[in-house]
Amino acid sequence: MKKLIFLLLILFYSVGFSQHPNLILTKTDANKIKQSLGKYPILDRSVQLSKKIVDEALQNPVDVPWPKDPGGGYTHEKHKQNYNEMYQAGLLFQITGDEKYAVFIRDMLRKYAEMYPKLGKHPKAKKQTPGRLFWQSLNETVWLVHTIQAYDCIYDWLDEKDRHLFENNIFIPMANFFLNECRHEFDLLHNHGTWMVAAVGMTGYVLHRNDFIKKALYGSNLDKKSGFLAQLDYLFSPDGYYTEGGYYVRYALWPFFLFAEAIKNNQPELNIYQYRNSILKKALYSALQVTYTNGAFIPVNDALKEKTWMSPELIVAVDFVYANYEHDPQLLYLAKLHNEVNLSGAGLMVAKALTGKTDIPEFKWRSVEFTDGPDGKWGGVGILRFGNKNDQETLFMKYGSHGLSHGHFDKLTFLFYDQAREIIQDYGSARFLNVPQKWGGRYLPENYSWAKQTLAHNTVVVDMKSQYLAKKKLSQQHHSDRYFFNSKNQNLQYMSAKENNAYPGVHMQRTMALINDKKLYRPLVLDVFKIQSDEVHTYDLPYYYMGHLIDMNFKYEAYTTERHIMGEQYGYQHLWNQAEAVVDSQLIITWLNGKRFYSLISNTSKGSEVYLTEIGGTDPNFNLRNDHGIMIRVKNKNYVFASIIEPHGIFDPIKEFTVDPYSTIKKISVIYDSDEYTAINVKGKKNIDWVVIIVNQNANPNAMHNLNIKGKIYNWKGPFYLVKKER
Amino acid sequence: MKKLIFLLLILFYSVGFSQHPNLILTKTDANKIKQSLGKYPILDRSVQLSKKIVDEALQNPVDVPWPKDPGGGYTHEKHKQNYNEMYQAGLLFQITGDEKYAVFIRDMLRKYAEMYPKLGKHPKAKKQTPGRLFWQSLNETVWLVHTIQAYDCIYDWLDEKDRHLFENNIFIPMANFFLNECRHEFDLLHNHGTWMVAAVGMTGYVLHRNDFIKKALYGSNLDKKSGFLAQLDYLFSPDGYYTEGGYYVRYALWPFFLFAEAIKNNQPELNIYQYRNSILKKALYSALQVTYTNGAFIPVNDALKEKTWMSPELIVAVDFVYANYEHDPQLLYLAKLHNEVNLSGAGLMVAKALTGKTDIPEFKWRSVEFTDGPDGKWGGVGILRFGNKNDQETLFMKYGSHGLSHGHFDKLTFLFYDQAREIIQDYGSARFLNVPQKWGGRYLPENYSWAKQTLAHNTVVVDMKSQYLAKKKLSQQHHSDRYFFNSKNQNLQYMSAKENNAYPGVHMQRTMALINDKKLYRPLVLDVFKIQSDEVHTYDLPYYYMGHLIDMNFKYEAYTTERHIMGEQYGYQHLWNQAEAVVDSQLIITWLNGKRFYSLISNTSKGSEVYLTEIGGTDPNFNLRNDHGIMIRVKNKNYVFASIIEPHGIFDPIKEFTVDPYSTIKKISVIYDSDEYTAINVKGKKNIDWVVIIVNQNANPNAMHNLNIKGKIYNWKGPFYLVKKER
Repeated sequence: MKKLIFLLLILFYSVGFSQHPNLILTKTDANKIKQSLGKYPILDRSVQLSKKIVDEALQNPVDVPWPKDPGGGYTHEKHKQNYNEMYQAGLLFQITGDEKYAVFIRDMLRKYAEMYPKLGKHPKAKKQTPGRLFWQSLNETVWLVHTIQAYDCIYDWLDEKDRHLFENNIFIPMANFFLNECRHEFDLLHNHGTWMVAAVGMTGYVLHRNDFIKKALYGSNLDKKSGFLAQLDYLFSPDGYYTEGGYYVRYALWPFFLFAEAIKNNQPELNIYQYRNSILKKALYSALQVTYTNGAFIPVNDALKEKTWMSPELIVAVDFVYANYEHDPQLLYLAKLHNEVNLSGAGLMVAKALTGKTDIPEFKWRSVEFTDGPDGKWGGVGILRFGNKNDQETLFMKYGSHGLSHGHFDKLTFLFYDQAREIIQDYGSARFLNVPQKWGGRYLPENYSWAKQTLAHNTVVVDMKSQYLAKKKLSQQHHSDRYFFNSKNQNLQYMSAKENNAYPGVHMQRTMALINDKKLYRPLVLDVFKIQSDEVHTYDLPYYYMGHLIDMNFKYEAYTTERHIMGEQYGYQHLWNQAEAVVDSQLIITWLNGKRFYSLISNTSKGSEVYLTEIGGTDPNFNLRNDHGIMIRVKNKNYVFASIIEPHGIFDPIKEFTVDPYSTIKKISVIYDSDEYTAINVKGKKNIDWVVIIVNQNANPNAMHNLNIKGKIYNWKGPFYLVKKER
Repeated sequence: MKKLIFLLLILFYSVGFSQHPNLILTKTDANKIKQSLGKYPILDRSVQLSKKIVDEALQNPVDVPWPKDPGGGYTHEKHKQNYNEMYQAGLLFQITGDEKYAVFIRDMLRKYAEMYPKLGKHPKAKKQTPGRLFWQSLNETVWLVHTIQAYDCIYDWLDEKDRHLFENNIFIPMANFFLNECRHEFDLLHNHGTWMVAAVGMTGYVLHRNDFIKKALYGSNLDKKSGFLAQLDYLFSPDGYYTEGGYYVRYALWPFFLFAEAIKNNQPELNIYQYRNSILKKALYSALQVTYTNGAFIPVNDALKEKTWMSPELIVAVDFVYANYEHDPQLLYLAKLHNEVNLSGAGLMVAKALTGKTDIPEFKWRSVEFTDGPDGKWGGVGILRFGNKNDQETLFMKYGSHGLSHGHFDKLTFLFYDQAREIIQDYGSARFLNVPQKWGGRYLPENYSWAKQTLAHNTVVVDMKSQYLAKKKLSQQHHSDRYFFNSKNQNLQYMSAKENNAYPGVHMQRTMALINDKKLYRPLVLDVFKIQSDEVHTYDLPYYYMGHLIDMNFKYEAYTTERHIMGEQYGYQHLWNQAEAVVDSQLIITWLNGKRFYSLISNTSKGSEVYLTEIGGTDPNFNLRNDHGIMIRVKNKNYVFASIIEPHGIFDPIKEFTVDPYSTIKKISVIYDSDEYTAINVKGKKNIDWVVIIVNQNANPNAMHNLNIKGKIYNWKGPFYLVKKER
């Protein structure tokens, strides 16, 4: 009886659902692609790439192994391979009509149908989010997102018996596993949640299960507090910035766009691409801007530095945004780089647009600020840029919210790039993705003990502890505040933000600028980090420079025959103390990176300590990169770290010449500091003599100010003022 | 009276000399170039490059500063800039006829003529080889080689008074300075000597000073034991291999070719390009082969790794070899990369040949052996290669002579490249060329204390001391011996060499092979290092791997909170001990580099010690790179280190998959070892079971051998035998 009702329900739900496939690749588009073969090179190449994968699979026996290994291990990689092969085979069956592809999927699904009901929790399961086929449910949802597309592609071809088998032994129990055992994750406003709702929702469309669809869209309680639409509301700022940062948005975009496309094809009345002022479009553009000129995502939070916009997720997102919005030719630049399109109507459109097109504009990186938080009020990130793709300075400052489970305790940190290289780096994450020897390919223990800690970032550490004592829940309750951002004049771009919660009783404000001047070889970075507190604290400001140390203008004690770590916790245990010094006056450190020199010029006060460090202490498994840093330490109540990072000169070992190996800037000092104003004096060769005044309490660009500094009156408008006295 | 005789002599010598210029660029060729402008893009570009340099110089006042700074400092770089600007201006005057270029040279030479006679020894002079304009005479000779060309170009345009002034105040005293004060260097069979004889000889041609010319050709005693011809005899092996190695041959080729071209134009009867079976041609081809696929010279001896065949010296050499030999189209590949030609008849010929040519063959790197020493009997270097330019394995072994003043104590060392990257590196030299903060841009103290020491190389260190106790004079008296080299079968290439003098009483033989097999992802490196001694010694074999350590198959003690250096001398003071272990059985260490894994699989015997090291101990000025190594230590009389370096698998963080992160080879062992034969067994996954037998005393490729190993009889021909038992 139950079965009968179930079948009737299925029939009922089926009314109004269109033919198969209709998830991402539709029947109509499959036919169009078939008719387009031979016309558009990038489409042909994409079909060939699919064929290569599947044709190779067809040569080998189907293997659906009993789950055993963590990430990188055989069974893990095999199940990933299987879903991809089924997915590609599904597309090829639709595009070519060749039954061998359908047979391949059916045979493999039969094996899964036999095994899946017998599976319990994966033997290497994660505590929080166990899977069955995989050690974590995340991979399982990705499996379903792919496999349900394969199933959709052969649905009409299968007989009733197989359909019944697959749905009852695999798809329905897996969806129910997600909805029930993984309910917490299903309702999470997080990219893992997005994968899961996408998997369940797409299964709903194919199986005509309205309950799956509704829960996917509106949350397991159907209260709209979770589910896909809530994720679109919550995970992106109004600018489209994704709260976990660039690396993870890349991954998140995949299920967002796949499910959006499935929604468009099945419930066009939801106008999903127009949802929240076209938030999906903004999400892609924001992701693309949060890259450096090599296409690598700026690696804040748990990011792998190897990841670029060449990732396959971006192929999907680029095609769907191109097709569903205003056909922006800039996106074709990316599609051309990818040299591959998604085998769908959108991919077809991109392939057609690319064919014969020779005037594709290059992607334009801009100076831009993105707000963070669903309402855009959780701080944000600022990016200042100078120069073209080949040799671009990029200064990135982070002053947003914690960024969910992959967030770092890194408020007010920054990164600096030049020459298509990292100059001041963020460590990124400690992980060797899918390398089984390295903790099963998962995040390494050092990801928490080092990479997430404040010390691993280019920001002030107070009293040798991390922000929020490295407690995620605490950090998630707060965010930094943006203060001002102005990139209108490319020769004088500046931004400022404040952080008042990371260390109780300590108020921090960081102001950074890119300043160009004809006396300089390239724009320099000005960095003014103002701290206020009623109590004396230890303030450590590290800079993780990339390159080879060339010179320091102070005497130091180097630890040349014996070395010790810098502390016991909060990441200090991971730093070797290479050398230390007490520096009472100007600090100048020069390093060489590629064909250019870089100098850090920093104010110091009497008794300031300076440490040269190497990452890699307390690292018995050699999980960390042995990169270098310099750390300035002061003990004080109120303090202003004023620094300049100056790129200078040329090192040409091929033609054997050197230009300007010494910095132009020689001195930076704080000449005024109050609650209202902080003034900095910068002096250097060629009579450089600048005064920079930062307004600390009023970001109004039109407010007029005047200030008397040592008898000289300064009058200006707006929160950031630079006067070049030597002119 | 003396003056009169001198002038008469000048007149006398002038008879038989042709018009000016006639050194490198001749009057005839200058006219041809003038008529060719606008026809050959690369020629036009080369002229434009010259114009850019000189036209900028014309905007600024001439500065001939009093010599003060070492390499990289202002006066050093300015005098370099000056000679280059004069040289370029000379060419442009000849090519364009525009007098402003001649005026520029004349005015600058007047300033030199005023200053030069007043100069004493340079204030930063090197002890051995002081200059006057520069801290070392080497730069001074380069100055003259360039400036005499400039003078040649404006000789006819100048009035008698200026010619007299320049010759008497600059050229003659400078040449005499080289001939007298620098006589030791002038007569040195060394690239510095070549620069000097070229400078003096070219001055001789322009000033019609036969005495200069003869001494340049035949040595200051005219006894042919030194001078240019002796250098051609002595510095190159019959194969054209330059005894200092690839990095320095690049630099040496420059004066060799410039002076050769000047000789050709002025004394064609010497047939200089045919001298010693066309040794100059062989020298260029040998230099080109001693590069990796990125064009970088394989950095043995005192080499900077940044140096590639894009160096301007190679433009000259490529043009002159192309023009004076059989117009090899392969050389056009390099000229195209350079995108510049020498402004001379040879450069014109290359520019013409390149124009419109679309079928330029790529440069072909080959497996090749070069002998060392004037008679080719001082050992040599062997290079085994597999694969094309984009992803080529290159295995380089060094078994030649010391290599003059820039030699390292590195007999039987090797380097291994793959993926266009270093996999097992040679440190190269410790030097920041022209960076004044780094020891004036000279070789750093660590170049001797680390980079030259045996420990800094991938070869066995006996009793923690360097070969020849790091004494150059001792090392120069000996050389290693080549034993066999065979690269006929690209799937099984092998080479072997012996060293009997570096450590008294210790006999060493290293045999290396590149072995390809369909069961492997890529060819592996087999490394069999056999040592014989009557006494017990400590044998340390380091491998300086590049990449991130992934996994080791043994337990070790890691120094995680405190670190110490490995010793007190011979480079041990520069190694940090990161971790150590006692390993009784197979050693397997895996690291990740780029998109591929690499494993070192090595035999160990009971009590073998293993150390993980980091370079950078005892380095108070942070002059060293903090690269990593693994060192195997055994104490024994006779011993065979048998190792494999296996590239395996795929690491793809973009597409997020991993293949074969564990090595295929699991075990390597020595199953037989005698004076006559050494047999190795290699076992691995997929039933790999190989036996390799090396014949230790008979390199005859046709000799027949048979050997009974544990009851199994092996019969084979030649010195290296591989049998795959599993087939």
